Amino acid sequence: MRLEELDTPAAWVDLDVMERNIERMGSYCKKHGLALRPHIKTHKVPELAWRQLDSGAVGITSAKVTEAEVMASAGLDDILIAYPVWGEHKWRRLAGLAGRAAIAIATDSVEHADALAAGLGEAAKKIYLLVEVDVGSGRTGLPIDRSLSGRLARIAEAGIPVKGMMIYPGYIKEIEQDSIKRLGDRISSAVSEYEKSGLSLSVVSGGSTPTAFYSHLLPGVTEIRPGTYIFNDCNYVRIGAATWDDCALKVRCRVVSTSVAAGAIIDGGSKAFSDAAAIHASGFGRLVQCPEVSCEKMNEEHGYLNLEGSGFSPRAGEMVDVIPNHVCTTVNMHHVLHGVRNGEVEEIWNVAAQGKIH
Amino acid sequence: MRLEELDTPAAWVDLDVMERNIERMGSYCKKHGLALRPHIKTHKVPELAWRQLDSGAVGITSAKVTEAEVMASAGLDDILIAYPVWGEHKWRRLAGLAGRAAIAIATDSVEHADALAAGLGEAAKKIYLLVEVDVGSGRTGLPIDRSLSGRLARIAEAGIPVKGMMIYPGYIKEIEQDSIKRLGDRISSAVSEYEKSGLSLSVVSGGSTPTAFYSHLLPGVTEIRPGTYIFNDCNYVRIGAATWDDCALKVRCRVVSTSVAAGAIIDGGSKAFSDAAAIHASGFGRLVQCPEVSCEKMNEEHGYLNLEGSGFSPRAGEMVDVIPNHVCTTVNMHHVLHGVRNGEVEEIWNVAAQGKIH
Repeated sequence: MRLEELDTPAAWVDLDVMERNIERMGSYCKKHGLALRPHIKTHKVPELAWRQLDSGAVGITSAKVTEAEVMASAGLDDILIAYPVWGEHKWRRLAGLAGRAAIAIATDSVEHADALAAGLGEAAKKIYLLVEVDVGSGRTGLPIDRSLSGRLARIAEAGIPVKGMMIYPGYIKEIEQDSIKRLGDRISSAVSEYEKSGLSLSVVSGGSTPTAFYSHLLPGVTEIRPGTYIFNDCNYVRIGAATWDDCALKVRCRVVSTSVAAGAIIDGGSKAFSDAAAIHASGFGRLVQCPEVSCEKMNEEHGYLNLEGSGFSPRAGEMVDVIPNHVCTTVNMHHVLHGVRNGEVEEIWNVAAQGKIH
Repeated sequence: MRLEELDTPAAWVDLDVMERNIERMGSYCKKHGLALRPHIKTHKVPELAWRQLDSGAVGITSAKVTEAEVMASAGLDDILIAYPVWGEHKWRRLAGLAGRAAIAIATDSVEHADALAAGLGEAAKKIYLLVEVDVGSGRTGLPIDRSLSGRLARIAEAGIPVKGMMIYPGYIKEIEQDSIKRLGDRISSAVSEYEKSGLSLSVVSGGSTPTAFYSHLLPGVTEIRPGTYIFNDCNYVRIGAATWDDCALKVRCRVVSTSVAAGAIIDGGSKAFSDAAAIHASGFGRLVQCPEVSCEKMNEEHGYLNLEGSGFSPRAGEMVDVIPNHVCTTVNMHHVLHGVRNGEVEEIWNVAAQGKIH
């Protein structure tokens, strides 16, 4: 089947670009002795997680227990759930999962570690904890101060083995020497405070695509968890973490109306792209066929192209491709992705972890 | 099962509020002799479409052929697809659907009508067209000018019976006497120009929740297509189209971290709420337990509550409810909705048309 035969909107992946992205990250990690544990939130497809394993990844990262279940069912047996898993339903499922895969869970409070241990019962011995420390996101993570080692000791008392530390540098949206330096300093402080607890620090899990290729400059980091690198997107190009040539995923849409002057409406709106906002820009993405066109705004089923001054004037019925602002949230709007090479659809993947919110 | 026993995040509907919303719209339409054709994009649940039929609706509206298929499979047999359906895949499916339900399709160009007729073949005789006219959205619809009647005549030549006109007043975000008056004037002009074509005008389909209860003031309108009214949301309260008491759908979330000062992180982010922006406000919704708390921002799995100055300080593990900015895009993130009365989960609905993008 050819790309142009797909029903629209259709999310499709340029296989050559994706394979290059996977290979580049795998090589980087090998070169610097870093463990690679890709976050599957970007693709949500077990087959693609396996390709990441083939590139040298040691395991995967997910945010939700239900995502981990999907991946474990496909044989992926080393999973970090990088989220403070909380609630009876989730703990029951997690206890089931713990027998089938090596599972680590992030925590950032004594209350959570205690509740998790109680919720897991016997299964608490079968998993590991990584304690999250806040290196600047202001989201989750214990503060880096003199209270850290005491809190770590209390977390360890819950009875779940503590394996190391997790940080989230993904909040950094300006990749420059200074921000990397500041991040490194915070990690160093965190490691110093952590070591006072006497707990195992066999893992310092960092990562995220924006800073991924700077990870060898970050003291103490042993593994990284980038997700977006497999596809990349407009926002990561805009912050300097990728180039347009690195963007593997596009959404093919059809122009369905040109009735309004200087405009064209495509059949991809927020239900095909998500409502994710642009960083350092406006609109919902970049039109491959003519980047001068502004992908101005969306309703659920309507994408508004502003053609003014672009010289581009598609006919109704014509197809176009748009690189989304945020590829992870875009993928979550689709039930299938299409792997394309030279215009031919070589593979169709079920987005098996689509909508797994638990 | 009690509401608090649901796994989080969980989308739940206050049945008393929803039933009042359904009844109010049904009564309004009966009183004013307007046909009610609710847009199912808000709930995507056949059982709820049936409740709307029970309140007097004559049929339903969808945006996509695949949504119409889901509804037709549940016995809903009078469907307006309010969208210029374009593409071989969709036309084939539409031809199948035309034998099972009364189907009308929106069009806004000669090119589309010709392509649709060719794509449908024999089935073209089994459906109807409504021609969309632009009353101010700047999205789709033919312009209201002297070219209209000629274009209508050319659209009719495609061979699909034309039944009337469709307008989209949903772009109006300031509900006041002036905007309603301007809308009414535009509809009058459109009707005048339309009538010059001599084509049937048995339907003038208007609607959308914001202006729904003003529809009797709009000259010529015979039916309305509101969707959001069944649940309502923050944005519709903010534009004056509903009150907080009319908001039936909330997302129950759990606080999973309070490690960052003056903040709390809940386990609902853009994967539970969509990224839909607030109108006339910021943030991602309204916290039911304490509206003074700012629902500040989201990542995919993290909702950031800013507790500063609110007096609210939830413990980790506690549950809260958030009314979303945009309920239609929120529902599309969920595979099930829970119908709740007096804290008891009375019904669980499969969001059968979730993610139907074709």
